[in-house]
Amino acid sequence: MKEQQATTGQQVSVRIKDAFWDVYTGLVRDTVIPYQWEALNDRIPDAEPSFAIRNFRIAAGREQGEFGGMVFQDSDVAKWLEAVGYALATHPDPELERTADEVIELVAAAQQEDGYLNTYFTIKEPGKRWTNLYEAHELYCAGHMIEAAVAYCEGTGKRRLLDVVCKLADHIDTVFGREPGQLRGYDGHQEIELALVKLYAATGERRYLKLAQFFIDERGTAPNFLVRECEQRGGFSLWTGTKQPIPTPRQLAYNQAHRPVREQEAAVGHAVRAVYMYTAMADLAALTGDAGLLEACRRLWANMTGKQMYITGGIGSTHHGEAFSFDHDLPNDTVYAETCASIGLIFFANRMLRLEPRSEYADVMERALYNNVIGSMSQDGKHYFYVNPLEVWPRASDDNPDRRHVKAVRQKWFGCSCCPPNVARLLCSLNDYIYSASTERNTVYTHLFIGSEARFELPGGTVAFKQRSHLPWQGCVQFELTEAQGEGEFAFAVRIPSWCYGQAVMKINGAESAYETVGGYAIVSRSWAKGDLVEWEPRLEARLIAANPEIRADAGKAAIERGPLVYCLEQVDNGGPISALSVDPAAELRPVQDGALPGGAIAVEAAGYRTGPGGWQPDTPYRPLDQSPASEQVKLKAVPYFLWGNRQPGEMSVWIRLSRV
Amino acid sequence: MKEQQATTGQQVSVRIKDAFWDVYTGLVRDTVIPYQWEALNDRIPDAEPSFAIRNFRIAAGREQGEFGGMVFQDSDVAKWLEAVGYALATHPDPELERTADEVIELVAAAQQEDGYLNTYFTIKEPGKRWTNLYEAHELYCAGHMIEAAVAYCEGTGKRRLLDVVCKLADHIDTVFGREPGQLRGYDGHQEIELALVKLYAATGERRYLKLAQFFIDERGTAPNFLVRECEQRGGFSLWTGTKQPIPTPRQLAYNQAHRPVREQEAAVGHAVRAVYMYTAMADLAALTGDAGLLEACRRLWANMTGKQMYITGGIGSTHHGEAFSFDHDLPNDTVYAETCASIGLIFFANRMLRLEPRSEYADVMERALYNNVIGSMSQDGKHYFYVNPLEVWPRASDDNPDRRHVKAVRQKWFGCSCCPPNVARLLCSLNDYIYSASTERNTVYTHLFIGSEARFELPGGTVAFKQRSHLPWQGCVQFELTEAQGEGEFAFAVRIPSWCYGQAVMKINGAESAYETVGGYAIVSRSWAKGDLVEWEPRLEARLIAANPEIRADAGKAAIERGPLVYCLEQVDNGGPISALSVDPAAELRPVQDGALPGGAIAVEAAGYRTGPGGWQPDTPYRPLDQSPASEQVKLKAVPYFLWGNRQPGEMSVWIRLSRV
Repeated sequence: MKEQQATTGQQVSVRIKDAFWDVYTGLVRDTVIPYQWEALNDRIPDAEPSFAIRNFRIAAGREQGEFGGMVFQDSDVAKWLEAVGYALATHPDPELERTADEVIELVAAAQQEDGYLNTYFTIKEPGKRWTNLYEAHELYCAGHMIEAAVAYCEGTGKRRLLDVVCKLADHIDTVFGREPGQLRGYDGHQEIELALVKLYAATGERRYLKLAQFFIDERGTAPNFLVRECEQRGGFSLWTGTKQPIPTPRQLAYNQAHRPVREQEAAVGHAVRAVYMYTAMADLAALTGDAGLLEACRRLWANMTGKQMYITGGIGSTHHGEAFSFDHDLPNDTVYAETCASIGLIFFANRMLRLEPRSEYADVMERALYNNVIGSMSQDGKHYFYVNPLEVWPRASDDNPDRRHVKAVRQKWFGCSCCPPNVARLLCSLNDYIYSASTERNTVYTHLFIGSEARFELPGGTVAFKQRSHLPWQGCVQFELTEAQGEGEFAFAVRIPSWCYGQAVMKINGAESAYETVGGYAIVSRSWAKGDLVEWEPRLEARLIAANPEIRADAGKAAIERGPLVYCLEQVDNGGPISALSVDPAAELRPVQDGALPGGAIAVEAAGYRTGPGGWQPDTPYRPLDQSPASEQVKLKAVPYFLWGNRQPGEMSVWIRLSRV
Repeated sequence: MKEQQATTGQQVSVRIKDAFWDVYTGLVRDTVIPYQWEALNDRIPDAEPSFAIRNFRIAAGREQGEFGGMVFQDSDVAKWLEAVGYALATHPDPELERTADEVIELVAAAQQEDGYLNTYFTIKEPGKRWTNLYEAHELYCAGHMIEAAVAYCEGTGKRRLLDVVCKLADHIDTVFGREPGQLRGYDGHQEIELALVKLYAATGERRYLKLAQFFIDERGTAPNFLVRECEQRGGFSLWTGTKQPIPTPRQLAYNQAHRPVREQEAAVGHAVRAVYMYTAMADLAALTGDAGLLEACRRLWANMTGKQMYITGGIGSTHHGEAFSFDHDLPNDTVYAETCASIGLIFFANRMLRLEPRSEYADVMERALYNNVIGSMSQDGKHYFYVNPLEVWPRASDDNPDRRHVKAVRQKWFGCSCCPPNVARLLCSLNDYIYSASTERNTVYTHLFIGSEARFELPGGTVAFKQRSHLPWQGCVQFELTEAQGEGEFAFAVRIPSWCYGQAVMKINGAESAYETVGGYAIVSRSWAKGDLVEWEPRLEARLIAANPEIRADAGKAAIERGPLVYCLEQVDNGGPISALSVDPAAELRPVQDGALPGGAIAVEAAGYRTGPGGWQPDTPYRPLDQSPASEQVKLKAVPYFLWGNRQPGEMSVWIRLSRV
């Protein structure tokens, strides 16, 4: 049971009740899931058709036609089903469940006799199964369907899809392996690995765990599977339809297949693939006690979050290959910071927390969640950023091709629509990220401050409590013990968030209480009784944040943070160009309630300057500094990054020039 | 004769004798021209072969083989011949001339019976002449050969190549026109237009002028020629070898063919094509008195130099299409600023000066020449920048694909090697850019401060003088009249350079003299006599320069200029990261002779600050500003931009953060 807990948190039951997050989870249930259903069925006016459901109908023989969409289009259906599974777990909805059951029957009908399940190859290239792992996302799509099946089974108790994916996984297990006649390979896009761990946890079948381990262990070993496969295909590329050169080591780094995973020193390549792989590595390290894998996880975590992460929790700094570039290269304007990559970063953080409860993992998880991830979605739930920039100049997004991937307004849907369903499945399963429990340490850890009702099985018996949180606006959190079986002896550990800089007060039943600090958590071990009230007050105030001088893009600038939220300046509040504004480094940062922002959001005001356009002729590009007009004092208004772009389009910047350095 | 003077300056004879420039012109003669000759013959070790001479040998039937290189490879031979023509004009070199004569015979042998001359189509697609003006550079190559012929004839008196290109131009004149059976079109890459004006000036044949006018007048009119042509080809593209979509208006703007040239409001598209076209427009405006064309030239000049030009005189801010993006979009790191584009800008400025002597044209010409253009060449003459960045981080050039086009060190040669021969031909003809004479106004204008001996024909007779200049290091220029026929009555006009900010003293024969200021020129009209000495002392001092706040990329920063030179910080002098440095806006800028730099170059020192890496852990990306280490005072050392990258590779930046704004 320990193993299951480490990966699925089955011993924890959590239901969110939170003023801030209920809006989002409600939006996902009431708007995103239905809207995505329409999208999957090609019923969104003016949006590119998805073809996703139609592909399954064709593969199931219920309709005639050609495969449509991307080679990995099946995964959109899987992510939707996964989100539905999570949603039904907490909010029963018979009509939605009936729709999902129908989809599951359709998926089952599209499955081949031998367990194979992939509409692209079934419809379009039936003879070419498993010949292009490098490009064709076959195992990736399988992985998403497995995740969907586990979530749907957990949410509804229905095993229909779980049976389908077990048959699929069993088939994969015959195709891949080290026996003669088997493929000693792995997918170009990691995902199956973490999914198989979930399938193992859900079924207890160790062969799924072993298969996950096989894929991780084989990756990047010599001779390189992806190279040999490409040679065997004669270099044929699915994407170009022509012969392509055999991948170089640099190109293999895109797939994190340039060297064995345990030897990888830094986060490289396609960011989503990287974090999905790290997530599985952490899962396996937890389940197998593999010290080399744990060491690699720690090393890759440190590199990625210490040297390659934006302050918003975004990762992947270049559009080319949606990829990491290199240490400290974090341009704000040509940025990528894909939504899905931050979601994968949250998965990885979550698994690291299960491995070792260190607050740095939860700090990053919170940073990515409250900024990059929820900022990707519009307040109506129908528009998304795929790329999450830290600096936007709308004209440049239109007219400078180097920034064309940076959209200045959220888009309806995407040809490659991975992000919206990924947001949906994360937000619907957010309850899985708030706590963890360690039976060994007899401890309940609170990682995120999200109002919720939680129940845990500890060695001494069941423990339940309610969390009430005023985050992200105020640093006030309460925990009320609603159940404590037996002696009620357990350790209560609450994260000391990085943003309070060690200033956090705990009160127990009204009296200030000392606590032990271990791994960034405030821990109190005692006998707890029903009705006990823990108040947790991490200091939450707006601060100017500097970046490491190695991060060239942020030199001479500061960002505003307030608690878990990163702020930004928008043109609608401050006029343009935003780059003409600077903030006084000694400025008082005043939180102000802003009626123009949704949901009681708090803006931050500060004294600053504007480099005056007054006196500049539009046609004069350059002139002596001492003849240029002086800066004028202005009041700056910063808004939470996650809310940017919800009013009128305009310039935006997270990093603000300092008026003095 | 007036018309000829306006375009070729035949009435002016100038020979450079200048400590600064003799190094460059000598380098071109002694190193660049011979080195390029080796390159054209594929004899540079480790460099990509050019195929250029070989293509002519194949087309002439002297060798068997396939066409090699780019579709416009012929133009490299033409540019080399043009440079040789200029070089021979001032520095006879029988061996070089013999080599050039042989090349000219080869070119003549490659010409077809009907006058057609293009090795690509002759060798590779003989049936497809004039079917792909959009992509194939046929008229572009013809234009360069015409320029070469005019220069070679002027330099050596030999008409052989001129006869070849007249036959070519006559052939073109039969193919293009408004008569039935003629092509009512123009080249995708402008160049033929300015070349035909030169051919007209050299031969007096008005049909060449009319043909130039035809190309300019037709461009961008409806129905669009390039669109119709593409339709007639069935969309076939030379570059991809496949069918491509019909060009959109946005794509036609790449070729400045989106609307008639007189209606173009702003500089758009491929920067080199744009400035070559503007040059021809200015030529035609001068020769025909076309007011609409002059108006368009002024408008496009104002837009380009006022809103789309880097402080180094670079133009074209994006790699994609080597193109302009839009007003005030001048990123320093993802910059393009191609060398050839600045050379074309100098051509355009030169023609505008002939149209109307306004110092702003010469200011820009000088800016582009002393910074972007000579900075593109290494001090050994064998290495070049194609892209001339204002900010370089070598690791980013290697590992961030968004900056891969920005090389951190000059390259040996290029697959598309347009820049090195273009630099050569400009530097060898630099004597054409220093002065102009107006017979109407009876005035000699000095635009550039380059030591030289000059001779002019004015209404009153021949005038000759010597210019001695201490530019770019000191603001001291002397003009000694060596000949003044007749009464010696003429107006002597010397540019008041923008960088002296109106502070310029003139002395005549030792006594300070008043002068009239017209169009940015200091003018003295009087009777001059042989031996008269004019001393001209524009104030030359280092200054901090600010950019218009609309230029987002330069916000909160300053550049250092000293006279015509832009300066930059290099890592070799200041350590890295360069972005951690800031300059005190009130700092005294001290010129210092620097023995580490070539040729008595003057560096500039200033007080500044470094944002300390001290106290930052490498793995800590962000932390509160008030807990970050204070900046430390440092002495900054800036070097002339044109010299950057001649020592060891490292970071470089033109724009320096201000420590206070």
